[in-house]
Amino acid sequence: MRISALAAQTEIPVATIKFYLRENLLHEGVRTAATQAQYDETHVARLRLIRALLGPGGLSVAAAQRVIQTIEEPPESVHELLGVAASAVAPPAKDADERPRVRELISRLGLEIDEKGYSSCAAADDALRALDEAGFELPAGALEFYLDQMRQIAQFEIDNVPTDSATAAVRYVVLGTVLIEPLLLALRRLAEQEASARRFG
Amino acid sequence: MRISALAAQTEIPVATIKFYLRENLLHEGVRTAATQAQYDETHVARLRLIRALLGPGGLSVAAAQRVIQTIEEPPESVHELLGVAASAVAPPAKDADERPRVRELISRLGLEIDEKGYSSCAAADDALRALDEAGFELPAGALEFYLDQMRQIAQFEIDNVPTDSATAAVRYVVLGTVLIEPLLLALRRLAEQEASARRFG
Repeated sequence: MRISALAAQTEIPVATIKFYLRENLLHEGVRTAATQAQYDETHVARLRLIRALLGPGGLSVAAAQRVIQTIEEPPESVHELLGVAASAVAPPAKDADERPRVRELISRLGLEIDEKGYSSCAAADDALRALDEAGFELPAGALEFYLDQMRQIAQFEIDNVPTDSATAAVRYVVLGTVLIEPLLLALRRLAEQEASARRFG
Repeated sequence: MRISALAAQTEIPVATIKFYLRENLLHEGVRTAATQAQYDETHVARLRLIRALLGPGGLSVAAAQRVIQTIEEPPESVHELLGVAASAVAPPAKDADERPRVRELISRLGLEIDEKGYSSCAAADDALRALDEAGFELPAGALEFYLDQMRQIAQFEIDNVPTDSATAAVRYVVLGTVLIEPLLLALRRLAEQEASARRFG
């Protein structure tokens, strides 16, 4: 189909599609003339993915580029992949292994992670620092409790990684990392409203 | 202290402090001359809060304004407050109660929420729609499992709401909503790296 038909089918303006092409988020169509190209269902699927990443996924164009590149050129092992997925979304903190609090956090929580996990650990450290700076005191045992809940979620998710094809595993890991986050946060707020109504309502 | 001393103490440039003043994020100091004002520890504390909200909290200036306004003029009941906190961070979706999927979600998950919860429910609906559009299929039972984990987290959090003063409750609820989110997401990624290493490493 022509770009106009692609725009009509996906309800995305032609100018926006051209922007995605320039930014290498969308792969080129098959050229049929100097100013014309043919697009197919792979472009429709990719456009849906781009909209999901940039919209509810909340990614920047640069982060979406990294995610799409990971899907196109997946690393060999699924474990490697998970690291790439995490850093595609949040680029590794350069000074992660030089932060004393990161090491302290790893030992305090008994985390079983290697250097690849340092950037997520730095993100946790940043979050704790922000709480400190805002003068917010976590209730006793809160950090351990949160980690325990997240470990149950992670176990469920990793148990469900499809291993039949690399592409399926990549999609699951990358999209699961980015797109499940807004779902979890929305469910937390819903659950807080329920719990608040029970206690204070 | 003068604005220059405030800048030195907080390590925030004078121009940035002036921007926060113009945007009503920071309260005015006590005027001592046409172009001079005195600032105190309340300004230092507020600047820390602003940085936490705009930085790791990931809020826009408009959302930070809503959060700070809620802290300054707290509603009467804690339950009311929680609703305000949620909508301060994510403004209520206007069409929430007109979406058939929101009602369907409420009934499918057996959620005990009233109209105030519709905007969080719309956020969950948006997240599910984004997963659909990206072609991501949630494993069977995943939604119920996620909700169950978030209910345990919410129960823990609501149990710990301080009730000794309205200000303390507001800070806990508003900051807890915004600043715990990046912590939970970072812990989820850490836990995924552990689980992935166990299964695939």
